[in-house]
Amino acid sequence: MVAVLSPLAPKSFPDLPEIEGVRFATGAAGVRYKGRTDVMLALFDKGTQAAGVFTKSKCPSAPVDWCRARLKGGKARALVVNSGNANAFTGKIGAQAAKLTASLAAKATGAPPAEIFLASTGVIGEPLDASKFEGVFEKLTKAASPDRLFEAAKAIMTTDTYPKVATARAMIGGVEVLISGMAKGAGMIAPDMATMLAFVFTDAPIAAPVLQSMLGKSVQGSFNAITVDSDTSTSDTLLLFATGAAAKRGAPQIAVANDRRLARFKTALDGLLLDLAQQVVKDGEGARKFIQVTVQGAATSPAAKKIALSIANSPLVKTAIAGEDANWGRIVMAVGKAGERAERDRLAIWFGDIRVAYKGLRDPAYDEKQVSKLMQAQEIDIRVDLGLGKGEATVWTCDLTKEYVAINGDYRS
Amino acid sequence: MVAVLSPLAPKSFPDLPEIEGVRFATGAAGVRYKGRTDVMLALFDKGTQAAGVFTKSKCPSAPVDWCRARLKGGKARALVVNSGNANAFTGKIGAQAAKLTASLAAKATGAPPAEIFLASTGVIGEPLDASKFEGVFEKLTKAASPDRLFEAAKAIMTTDTYPKVATARAMIGGVEVLISGMAKGAGMIAPDMATMLAFVFTDAPIAAPVLQSMLGKSVQGSFNAITVDSDTSTSDTLLLFATGAAAKRGAPQIAVANDRRLARFKTALDGLLLDLAQQVVKDGEGARKFIQVTVQGAATSPAAKKIALSIANSPLVKTAIAGEDANWGRIVMAVGKAGERAERDRLAIWFGDIRVAYKGLRDPAYDEKQVSKLMQAQEIDIRVDLGLGKGEATVWTCDLTKEYVAINGDYRS
Repeated sequence: MVAVLSPLAPKSFPDLPEIEGVRFATGAAGVRYKGRTDVMLALFDKGTQAAGVFTKSKCPSAPVDWCRARLKGGKARALVVNSGNANAFTGKIGAQAAKLTASLAAKATGAPPAEIFLASTGVIGEPLDASKFEGVFEKLTKAASPDRLFEAAKAIMTTDTYPKVATARAMIGGVEVLISGMAKGAGMIAPDMATMLAFVFTDAPIAAPVLQSMLGKSVQGSFNAITVDSDTSTSDTLLLFATGAAAKRGAPQIAVANDRRLARFKTALDGLLLDLAQQVVKDGEGARKFIQVTVQGAATSPAAKKIALSIANSPLVKTAIAGEDANWGRIVMAVGKAGERAERDRLAIWFGDIRVAYKGLRDPAYDEKQVSKLMQAQEIDIRVDLGLGKGEATVWTCDLTKEYVAINGDYRS
Repeated sequence: MVAVLSPLAPKSFPDLPEIEGVRFATGAAGVRYKGRTDVMLALFDKGTQAAGVFTKSKCPSAPVDWCRARLKGGKARALVVNSGNANAFTGKIGAQAAKLTASLAAKATGAPPAEIFLASTGVIGEPLDASKFEGVFEKLTKAASPDRLFEAAKAIMTTDTYPKVATARAMIGGVEVLISGMAKGAGMIAPDMATMLAFVFTDAPIAAPVLQSMLGKSVQGSFNAITVDSDTSTSDTLLLFATGAAAKRGAPQIAVANDRRLARFKTALDGLLLDLAQQVVKDGEGARKFIQVTVQGAATSPAAKKIALSIANSPLVKTAIAGEDANWGRIVMAVGKAGERAERDRLAIWFGDIRVAYKGLRDPAYDEKQVSKLMQAQEIDIRVDLGLGKGEATVWTCDLTKEYVAINGDYRS
C-alpha cells in the first residue's frame, strides 16, 4: 500500500460551511480491522429529498440495489457508509446484511428503514457482518454534528491519499443556498459511473424528481467523464440530498425541473461535481500527471466522447505521458481503435497550444523541444480535431505509472 | 528499452522446413538507424495466391491501404517488410512512399508492382524515406534463399524479445503440404487485429478466395482472441501466401472453400495461427504470466467473448495476477462492466481447477492457500461460468507489470 500523498493533491482544502439539516458522525465498527474509523453516519432533518446515480455494472453491490429501491420514495433521513467491505458479490446474504444495517440505523435514529441510504466500499466477495454495527449507530446519532463534513470525508477513504471535498453557493429566487459534497475513489475508476462514492448535500428546497433530473444531466460532464483505469466498480454511488432548510430563509420550493430559478443552482452543482470528479482523478492510483482530453470536430458528441475515452483509457498513451513523451502516434492509434468515424487526412492533434499533427501527418512547424518541455508539466492538455462535424467532448484521466501496478499488485496482501 | 528475454519465451525453436516457391532475404536499408537489419524481402514463384486480414483501425497505415488494394488481384510475387518506421499517419506522402517501395521492389525482382505486398512497423507519424531502399532490393533478390525463414522472423522484430515462428504439416488429397509462419508484436496488442505483423507461407495449391475465407475464420480464435494492452495498432497485418508447389507432388488444386479435402489443412492452419498468436502474448511487454480466460454459459458466444476480453483487458485483473493475488472480486467487476447479460447469483469463477466463487458469493469450500500456490505458476487459467446459456469463448493475455510501464514510458527516447 502506498500512502504517500498524490503530487496532484490540492494545496489546501476549502472551509466547509454547515448545511442546515445535515449532521455527520464517524466511528469504528471493526468491519475489517479493529480500531480503524470505518463507518460514517449522516443524519437528515425530516422532509429531506434524495436523488442518486449508480454504477452501470451488471453485478451491482447489495447497497446499490438497496439505494435504487429506496429512491422510489424520494425521501431520506440517514446515510450509512462503511469502508473495509464493499458488500458486493455477496448474494442473498449481502442483501440481508444491507437490510440489517438499515434496520440497526433505523432503530438508533428513529427514522424508517426505507429512508436510510447505504454505501459500502472495500473488498468484494467477502460477507459483511452487519451485526458489527450493533450499538454503533446509537453512539454516532448522539455525536452527530453539522460541522463534521470534512471528518466524514476522511472516514470514507480507502486507497485515497487525501479527502475530497468541495463547496459552492448559489442563488435561488434571491436567496443564497449552500451545496457541499465529498467523494472517495482512487482506482477502479471509469465512467458509468466512475468507481467511487460521492455524497452531496444542500439546504435548497428542491423536490426529489427535480434533483434526480439535474443529477442525471450533471454527471455526464463530470463523474461520467473521468477514468483512471477503465475499470468500473460494482459499487459506484452518487447521492444528492436536499434538506430544504433554506426555505426558512425564504428560498422558494422548486417542484419542476425546468424552473428557471434553478439556473444558477445547476451551474453551481455542475461545477461542484466536476471539482469532486477531478479530485478523484488527481488521486488516481500512482498518478503523477492530470490529463485533459478534448475531442472536437467529431461526427457527433457521443462519438467525440467515445474517442476521448479511447485516448484516456489507452495504456500506451498513459504510459507515454508518464514518461513525458509527446508520442502523438499513440493518440492516432487510440483515435483509430475507437471504432468511430475518423479520417486520417483531416485529423489534427495538439499538446497544449502546440499542434503536432495536421492533415494526416506531422505538423512541419512543431518544435520537439518545446513539446518536450510542455510534457514535463503536471497538467497535460491533449486536443484532437477530427475535422468532420461539430461533436465535442472533454474527459479527464491520469497517467499510468509503475506505482499503479505496485498498488494494485498487492492490494489484498 | 528492455532487451531481456521474456520468461515465457519458448525453450526451443522448431526446425523450419523449406517451403517450395518461397525465398527470404534480409538487409539493412538505414530506415531509422544505420547498420541495423531493418528490411526483409520474401520472393514467391509465379502463380502464388494471397489472402490477408488487417487492422480495424479507422486510421490504417499506408502499407495496410496498399495491401488491401493489392489483394483484389489475389496474386503475390513478393513481400517487403521494414522495421523502424510504420509509415502510418503519414498522409499522401505515406501512400507515395508505399508506391515507391513497391516500384523499387518490382524493378529489382521483375514482378509487377501490383503483386508486391508491403508491411511496415515502427514509429508512427514520421515520413518514411523510401529512397533508402534504392539498390537494396537488388542485393536481397540475389541473396534470397528458401532456408532463411528464421532469419526473416528475426529481421521483423521491434520490441519483441524473441522471434516467433511456427510450422505444421497437413494432408490434402493424400499429399503432405507444409505451412510455416512468422509473427512480430509485443505491445499495442488487441483484437481486430492483435497489433502485429504475421506472414504465413504454404506450398498448398489453394486459390486466393479460398485462402481468404479460411483466414477470416481462423483469426477469430487466434489473432483476434489475444490482447496485451487493449491497444489496436494502425498497422496490423496478417498475410497468407500459397505457392501451389505441392501440386507438383500431386496435391489437388483447391478452388472452393467448402472442399472437404481442406479439413486437415484448416485444422493445421488454426493450430499454427493460435501458436503464433500465443507467442505474441507470451512476449507481451513486461509479461511474466500467460493468462487464459474462458467464459462459458453466456447468453451468446459474442457476449462470452466480450466478457472474456473485459476480464483480459482489465488493468486491475492484470495487476492482481502480476502480484500473484487470486483477487476474484476484480473478475466480478470485469464481468459486470462488460455490458453483457450477467446475473450475480448464477456466476461461478475458477482459478485453475479451484472454484472460488459460486452462486453469488465466495465458494465456502475453497482454500486460499491452495489458490495462492496456483497463482505462483507461469500460466494462469481463469474460468467464468455465467449460468445463462451456451455461449463460450476463450482469449489469451498476459499480466500487467511495472516493466510494461517502463518499456512504454520511454519507447521513443
